[in-house]
Amino acid sequence: MRSSIIALITDFGTEDGYVGAMKGRILTLNPSARIVDISHEIPPFDVRSGAFCLFNSYAYFPEGTIFVVVVDPGVGTRRRGLVLLSDRHVFIGPDNGVFSLILKEERVQAFRIREEQLPGEISPTFHGRDVFAPLAAWKGAGQSIATYLEPVGNPESFWEDPKELDAGKWQLRVLHIDHFGNIILNLRRKDLPASGANIPRKLEGKDFVIQRYLKTFGEAGEGELAMMWDSSGFLQIARNQGHAAETLGARVGDPVILTLGASSK
Amino acid sequence: MRSSIIALITDFGTEDGYVGAMKGRILTLNPSARIVDISHEIPPFDVRSGAFCLFNSYAYFPEGTIFVVVVDPGVGTRRRGLVLLSDRHVFIGPDNGVFSLILKEERVQAFRIREEQLPGEISPTFHGRDVFAPLAAWKGAGQSIATYLEPVGNPESFWEDPKELDAGKWQLRVLHIDHFGNIILNLRRKDLPASGANIPRKLEGKDFVIQRYLKTFGEAGEGELAMMWDSSGFLQIARNQGHAAETLGARVGDPVILTLGASSK
Amino acid sequence: MRSSIIALITDFGTEDGYVGAMKGRILTLNPSARIVDISHEIPPFDVRSGAFCLFNSYAYFPEGTIFVVVVDPGVGTRRRGLVLLSDRHVFIGPDNGVFSLILKEERVQAFRIREEQLPGEISPTFHGRDVFAPLAAWKGAGQSIATYLEPVGNPESFWEDPKELDAGKWQLRVLHIDHFGNIILNLRRKDLPASGANIPRKLEGKDFVIQRYLKTFGEAGEGELAMMWDSSGFLQIARNQGHAAETLGARVGDPVILTLGASSK
Repeated sequence: MRSSIIALITDFGTEDGYVGAMKGRILTLNPSARIVDISHEIPPFDVRSGAFCLFNSYAYFPEGTIFVVVVDPGVGTRRRGLVLLSDRHVFIGPDNGVFSLILKEERVQAFRIREEQLPGEISPTFHGRDVFAPLAAWKGAGQSIATYLEPVGNPESFWEDPKELDAGKWQLRVLHIDHFGNIILNLRRKDLPASGANIPRKLEGKDFVIQRYLKTFGEAGEGELAMMWDSSGFLQIARNQGHAAETLGARVGDPVILTLGASSK
Repeated sequence: MRSSIIALITDFGTEDGYVGAMKGRILTLNPSARIVDISHEIPPFDVRSGAFCLFNSYAYFPEGTIFVVVVDPGVGTRRRGLVLLSDRHVFIGPDNGVFSLILKEERVQAFRIREEQLPGEISPTFHGRDVFAPLAAWKGAGQSIATYLEPVGNPESFWEDPKELDAGKWQLRVLHIDHFGNIILNLRRKDLPASGANIPRKLEGKDFVIQRYLKTFGEAGEGELAMMWDSSGFLQIARNQGHAAETLGARVGDPVILTLGASSK
Repeated sequence: MRSSIIALITDFGTEDGYVGAMKGRILTLNPSARIVDISHEIPPFDVRSGAFCLFNSYAYFPEGTIFVVVVDPGVGTRRRGLVLLSDRHVFIGPDNGVFSLILKEERVQAFRIREEQLPGEISPTFHGRDVFAPLAAWKGAGQSIATYLEPVGNPESFWEDPKELDAGKWQLRVLHIDHFGNIILNLRRKDLPASGANIPRKLEGKDFVIQRYLKTFGEAGEGELAMMWDSSGFLQIARNQGHAAETLGARVGDPVILTLGASSK
């Protein structure tokens, strides 16, 4: 039995022991599992934040890593449970959009979890412990879980592509606000044409215009705002040693207009 | 030497390195220990929250797991340090009620820690690092710790049983408020008679009456309040995608009157 | 390949997946690494807090432990990346003072990281993932990282020694405020003369005078303030079951005058 990595993302916080129950369950069913905490501090019910957290980390994990993502406001309703297989990784969690960015980036085989086939009692309020954790544990132990799966199409996604309004003018949206207040937009560098007028020149939001384009925070003066490519390739607005989102009053979903140019000013 | 699991619950937060010191100590004394974080975010000095967190997670852990629970406002006073042995698990921490729910649920052998017998210096303010962590490390490594233990009776407990006021009418108390705002009461499903008038019909608090009884959050309309059995079997008041405790102004310890009926309405 | 311990301290929080990316990277490059979370809750950009957290925990870890400390407001600027070797441990992170307390306590060999020699792309905003994590992974796997290192002098330090104002009168500063509100000062017990007038008698801050000197919190009445030696040997002001720093309005860097005496009152 190889020592599989099971990486966890939840919005549970840790203080009630819900995460502990999941870890205990995994270790009971798969004693050699290597549990890795990615985060338990996703804001409660915030599926978009969970999706971002997963996207920002998953690609760096070894082949075979199993991600269990439990941001699950619809637990106990008819929302489906999913297992997604990419060529390198396994993703387990609710079908509520939390895998939106994975679906955009990876080709996956998608399966619905047949909860009714699972042994044991299933709490209607805690599928993290009673559905997702056991499947991850068994899968990690090399056992087949095929009997609990059924191929399925069209997993939920909230992803919205940037919209070209005009030549070189795009409507973006705020995808995420991170711990440091960086405002991350739904455009990745690799989604732009490789050459030509593909340099960000201007970002216009409700109450701001940013025209400074830099490589990193540190090139800005203290407190200065600038746009730059973030470490996952998304366009972001950052403030050197400050909190850009508070400064600009930006919120997830806000529209922002990007103007591209032939070269940086 | 088998690879023991040592699971940690503290109110230390992580940012000062106190938890790090405990982990370092454990790994130095027992290099093959598998440390599992349950939580370090118990509210400071909140013994009841620590007890709930432990109770919500411990039963899912493999046999032999050692739980180190350090919510310890009385460190350095005459409060005793405890080691409790149930038939499957080991519990180590201060004798201040943090094991109340374990004591209600499990038959345990209880021992006082003879700190005066421990080798090395013991900081009067940090028994987590200097008393509990070493004992857990040695125990996990299969070494006898008997010389540091003395049988003892009557560990502290804050647990209060529900009180029957009248036939089918019970006075409960708020046991815990969780991360999502669920109000968890001190009554478990299995403590009710198995048949007859054992269906929750009404919960009356200081400023609220709840008469809706559901199986899960998702059956409620958005924002609706309802009572249901939680994933550990406690009766709870939950609000679909909302924070029940804030909505109702509920606090730990508040009395709540439960009326049972013969069937759900 | 031995199973190395790689201990992490960051100011990233966990919710964006940045810490996850670092963990994934480490496990990909060194599958047998044992990752230990010390903290990801250092306040954003707070180098002094990161330094304290590291200092409070490092000494308890086994020989060979590699500490990766990423509190890095200057990432992407010309600030150097460092690898420090003490006789027992390895420290990796930015040269911005985060190793100040290690430098005071340990003899180290210091090296600058030659980022330009590293394989692969390096994000200018995320050296934690692209520079420090890989070096830690390789070092932990027993590979030489010498080719990426260059001996260097004078790593940054913010440490300031206590100043003797008069016989038995010292100007201290607030070094850290911990999770419980304890006010930790920049004086360690072992830095005082072993005998003579070396008992703390009085601490005078801007708006307070403390004259009570105790061994532990628990000797004080509830809510009472006192000075005592903390679990790492620093002089601290603590309030029994309360938050001393809020009570006294103390902040990191504030001056505090200590008077020593021949014996405790």
